[in-house]
Amino acid sequence: MTLRVLGVDPGLTRCGVGIVEVAANRVPKLVSVHTIRSAADAPLEQRLMIIGRGIEALVDEFRPDAMAIERVFAQNNVRTVMGTAQVSGLALRAAAERGIPVALHTPSEVKAAVTGYGSADKKQVGAMVARLLGLDEVPKPADAADALALAICHAWRRNAPGASTPAGSSSLSRLSATTPTPGALTPAQRAWRDAEKSMRAPRLKG
Amino acid sequence: MTLRVLGVDPGLTRCGVGIVEVAANRVPKLVSVHTIRSAADAPLEQRLMIIGRGIEALVDEFRPDAMAIERVFAQNNVRTVMGTAQVSGLALRAAAERGIPVALHTPSEVKAAVTGYGSADKKQVGAMVARLLGLDEVPKPADAADALALAICHAWRRNAPGASTPAGSSSLSRLSATTPTPGALTPAQRAWRDAEKSMRAPRLKG
Repeated sequence: MTLRVLGVDPGLTRCGVGIVEVAANRVPKLVSVHTIRSAADAPLEQRLMIIGRGIEALVDEFRPDAMAIERVFAQNNVRTVMGTAQVSGLALRAAAERGIPVALHTPSEVKAAVTGYGSADKKQVGAMVARLLGLDEVPKPADAADALALAICHAWRRNAPGASTPAGSSSLSRLSATTPTPGALTPAQRAWRDAEKSMRAPRLKG
Repeated sequence: MTLRVLGVDPGLTRCGVGIVEVAANRVPKLVSVHTIRSAADAPLEQRLMIIGRGIEALVDEFRPDAMAIERVFAQNNVRTVMGTAQVSGLALRAAAERGIPVALHTPSEVKAAVTGYGSADKKQVGAMVARLLGLDEVPKPADAADALALAICHAWRRNAPGASTPAGSSSLSRLSATTPTPGALTPAQRAWRDAEKSMRAPRLKG
């Protein structure tokens, strides 16, 4: 059973859209990744039209089973938060219009899911996304990597039996909750756990 | 030359939509007024779909020459601001997709335009809207009256030769700037000035 998830990192200047497929063994595979851009000096309504059409074109092309969008907080950067909120509204409506289930995930939920650490920085998230998807390079820009991380996070949270993970808890502890003994891990799950450990080690030393 | 303006007071629970026509003599006429609602316990994406479809249906029915949307600030009520921003994004895109010119106006610009006072309360705005449109009752809920006020504000600001009025300046001073001597006022303009004065008087006493 493979789940195809389209993640959206909403933004007016750069909107990341990443599509992954996650098999029952939890190993994610890259399907496609995009950055939709609009000119900062264009009128707001034109920018929203461009980004909205771009999101819808990708949803219609890749027909995901689910969509995941980054949850925007009013407390974030006040200068950009309104545009980000408006784009997230367009993405949410695009999902609803097509009957595609959609969920919001906070940045710390996403970071915790892919790096095991809710306060990971963008570099760690990018590196982990590249490793998990078996890519030679980190997807650029960060918005693209974040959209892929969102999609992976959503697939894992949705597939997990104990899926209602509180924000900020580590994906490792969630993984072990669903597979109580180390011996029950599949090879892919062990690879993931080891990859996650090796990613976290430098941070713990630093 | 009559300008038909559709104003949107964005909201997830109640989204006000008001359509007015303003003739060259600046007298506004009510065309139609609506409140689009979505259930507070419905999923966010469904609410956005309902409100978005509702706005688009009214735009397509009434085919305005211009649209005006209330500018949302991140500093406002944090609990509702994200939904409000998302709805404003849907309205802005609806305008862009149809090639309808659209503008954002701040609440104080709207209040100043219809009451002459940028800090007027909702009751004053509603009463002035009713008076300007010759209605027996104040449009309810406040979101509907606000949407009409937005549409009137936009038509006046757009028609005025010195249209780049700073927020908070009074519509009376703007009116006199475009018609330097009282003798140059049309009967409708005099009626408006008198109505505005009578509305402002109680506040000055209070």
